[in-house]
Amino acid sequence: MNSFEYYNPTRVIFGAGAIGNVGPQTALWGKKALVLTTRSVTKRLGIFDRVKASLEKAGVESVDMFGVDPNPRLTTVYEGRALCLKQGVDVIVALGGGSVIDCAKAIAYAVFDDGDLWDFFTGKRVPPGGLPIIAVSTISGTGSEMNTNCVITHEHLDQKYSTHFVFSYPKTAIIDPELHVTVPPYLTACGMTDTISHVLEKYFDGTQQTPMQDRLAEGVTMTVFENENVLCDPHNMALRANLSWASVLALNGLNDAGRGSGYYDAHTIEMEISARYDVAHGAGLAVVHPAWMTYLCRKNPEKFAHFANRVFGITGGAMESGLAGIAALKEKFAGWGMPARLRDMNVPKEDLSVIAHAAVTSPEGEPLNEEDVYNVLLSCY
Amino acid sequence: MNSFEYYNPTRVIFGAGAIGNVGPQTALWGKKALVLTTRSVTKRLGIFDRVKASLEKAGVESVDMFGVDPNPRLTTVYEGRALCLKQGVDVIVALGGGSVIDCAKAIAYAVFDDGDLWDFFTGKRVPPGGLPIIAVSTISGTGSEMNTNCVITHEHLDQKYSTHFVFSYPKTAIIDPELHVTVPPYLTACGMTDTISHVLEKYFDGTQQTPMQDRLAEGVTMTVFENENVLCDPHNMALRANLSWASVLALNGLNDAGRGSGYYDAHTIEMEISARYDVAHGAGLAVVHPAWMTYLCRKNPEKFAHFANRVFGITGGAMESGLAGIAALKEKFAGWGMPARLRDMNVPKEDLSVIAHAAVTSPEGEPLNEEDVYNVLLSCY
Repeated sequence: MNSFEYYNPTRVIFGAGAIGNVGPQTALWGKKALVLTTRSVTKRLGIFDRVKASLEKAGVESVDMFGVDPNPRLTTVYEGRALCLKQGVDVIVALGGGSVIDCAKAIAYAVFDDGDLWDFFTGKRVPPGGLPIIAVSTISGTGSEMNTNCVITHEHLDQKYSTHFVFSYPKTAIIDPELHVTVPPYLTACGMTDTISHVLEKYFDGTQQTPMQDRLAEGVTMTVFENENVLCDPHNMALRANLSWASVLALNGLNDAGRGSGYYDAHTIEMEISARYDVAHGAGLAVVHPAWMTYLCRKNPEKFAHFANRVFGITGGAMESGLAGIAALKEKFAGWGMPARLRDMNVPKEDLSVIAHAAVTSPEGEPLNEEDVYNVLLSCY
Repeated sequence: MNSFEYYNPTRVIFGAGAIGNVGPQTALWGKKALVLTTRSVTKRLGIFDRVKASLEKAGVESVDMFGVDPNPRLTTVYEGRALCLKQGVDVIVALGGGSVIDCAKAIAYAVFDDGDLWDFFTGKRVPPGGLPIIAVSTISGTGSEMNTNCVITHEHLDQKYSTHFVFSYPKTAIIDPELHVTVPPYLTACGMTDTISHVLEKYFDGTQQTPMQDRLAEGVTMTVFENENVLCDPHNMALRANLSWASVLALNGLNDAGRGSGYYDAHTIEMEISARYDVAHGAGLAVVHPAWMTYLCRKNPEKFAHFANRVFGITGGAMESGLAGIAALKEKFAGWGMPARLRDMNVPKEDLSVIAHAAVTSPEGEPLNEEDVYNVLLSCY
């Protein structure tokens, strides 16, 4: 195990009815909140109204901003910054999934800066701090409610990069499975895929012996499998709760702790796809991640055989069982309605070389070999 | 899964050489530190000298207090309080295992009170806060470096109770496996047993479906098993590191989150033993916990069969495989040199009824049935 530092001060309030805590929790950090959300969230279960009522009851004034898109754009961050400054906002309530929470993190530090915000994503500058954030998750998968990750798309540059500043931890994550019951099966499956992808990135990339972390990663993966029936039984609160908690543990830092300098290669490649096309992040991962795993497995199958055995009970020679484990994972994704090939997502074949080039020059990950990435993309086209 | 709140702001600095962070981390919180430790720690690897040097280099003045015993006593807490007040200490460095860190937590809030400190353990009063604590672990098992638990023995009352105040989280936990290499096999095994006991208490007591938490508990248990060779290879840093991290994840709140109001029954019973006799906590658990599990299994074997299957690969009828799993666990403990019966620990048989009575009247746990507890104790006598 490598040396590491782990610090995660987000307070999690979990359970049916937890949404009622949004007012009191927000009041701990500010007097005037930006409620950041999507247009659609207002229609579901009166969630938006409940948040507003809870804030009002706690004596917190609020202004609203709708229309955060999936794969949130830098333009939206600038809009949020302007609104916060104009209205004197001192706390942000992010009501949504990863897109909204990530966007809130970017707005939170944008208000402390009047320059080019993309500098923070390309690593040119570091913001001095951020407004406090209360995250109310309405869909699980990204784990953004309990981490510092903030992924934003620069729509003019076709770039989708991330920041990870310590002040981006939400002060409180409110995870109320009742809010998740109207998430449609496709998006639910995207979240399940994203969760599994999060634990498997460094699991296969790391060179360290990390048995405890591996058990956690395998446990997250198997927990998602064991609760997949949510796709047929979307109002089942127990299944929703289990998936939500698994998605948080997948990316709150514990799984990666001690694994060393592994990268999120499949994420880096996928982000170049969803930066350009109307592709849900989880759906892109369902295609790219198994293809990337196959590439790694052909070079070094031992860990893949270990995974196949632990998670699917597959035994046999290393290469054979490693590849069988990847096939079993692809079968899971396909069974959930995820796409199996890039062509199913309307990615033009002639763009693969552009995507490969963008991935290897991205500040997101390790230096990848462009030809390898191109071949991986081709293999799942 | 039940509703829950999870909050754990302790910063973990983990890895060989991490001890060098003690000065800088302490300097973040105070100017004059109490270095609390045992007598023996000073002899091992020059750990004490390294801590003092690191503090001095960081500009932190320090006063020392040696002689914290295993099963730390209330008298020691009073001594620590007096020393802190006399010297104007504003931060505590706990250099040791669970006993030292727990004792530091009690001293930390004792300085804010001039009354009967036992009131905090019996639930009569709540302290207003505590001094910041930097925990430097020299032995793993209790997980005290990343939780609020503080177990103290009132030596005149034969009571061993605990507190769990949110301000008792150490600010920083420094976990340096190099400091663990001289821990003798017996105490190492005690820590391994304690770790497993922590994850299994609510695992079997809870009535909720908690698949993610169960995977974590099983993962901790199997990780301890997989690294048991440390008992023959004590200087193996990788094994030490894996065991340390497993012990932290066992009791930092994640395993219990959502399990509902289960209690630590085996711990409650064991604490009545180590409060009275010279018994290491982990050794007491090696005897009491399997006996308690057997009692529960005979009433409701399903979860025990599940455990036996997941952890030991045992299959068969519920009662048969549940009991076989417990037998396999006892075999592990015995293989590590842990005692198998109370008589091996010089507990007088005529005291069993006193222990049983004390356990059922303890503020630590749920109302247990005194006759049941007595019979459990008798079964492992």
